Amino acid sequence: MKTLPVLDPITDEACCTPAGQPALGAEEAKQKALVFKALADPNRLRLLSIVKAESSGESCVCDLTDPLDLGQPTVSHHLKILVDAGLLHREKRGTWAYYSLVPGALERTAGLLAAL
Amino acid sequence: MKTLPVLDPITDEACCTPAGQPALGAEEAKQKALVFKALADPNRLRLLSIVKAESSGESCVCDLTDPLDLGQPTVSHHLKILVDAGLLHREKRGTWAYYSLVPGALERTAGLLAAL
Repeated sequence: MKTLPVLDPITDEACCTPAGQPALGAEEAKQKALVFKALADPNRLRLLSIVKAESSGESCVCDLTDPLDLGQPTVSHHLKILVDAGLLHREKRGTWAYYSLVPGALERTAGLLAAL
Repeated sequence: MKTLPVLDPITDEACCTPAGQPALGAEEAKQKALVFKALADPNRLRLLSIVKAESSGESCVCDLTDPLDLGQPTVSHHLKILVDAGLLHREKRGTWAYYSLVPGALERTAGLLAAL
């Protein structure tokens, strides 16, 4: 994967004016893609929707395995990706871990699209 | 990957009330994940940003290779994924293909997050 911005693109095509520098830089694009990678899985979207729908504002990991019919290691793996992407907050209390939406995270992610 | 919705989850955990059915169904989650999969790549995000920034509203594929320093087959592969996801529109004119944003597509994708 090319990660450095192209500072001096060579333009040898003659059909039209080259677009020049991308509006979105390589490093910024990499960061933004990470959030969309976290969302690019049906089970992770379903986990987010369960946590979001929970009236108490948080879901115990023990509640998240049955609705998706997945084992707890798989669910924990998906939850870790959502936490790492800054979408979910994790709090360990006693035996269980509890997950809540990071306030404003979904709105900020929607904002990434508007700012492309 | 489990794709069928769980109609009758068995709940044998005792720590708290199970969340029950996910707010987002399995099939719907699969469809939504496809759009985020298309966005989950830095080069595709950069391609979208170039097309979006183009004052004429469309970019020739010949303009999209140099700014990203990628070969045309790679760029065409990424563009196809964006077209298949309903984010870009492709029109062939003469030798070249021209790409434009599907009107409202980024806004609808942002709306998917709000509707999770």
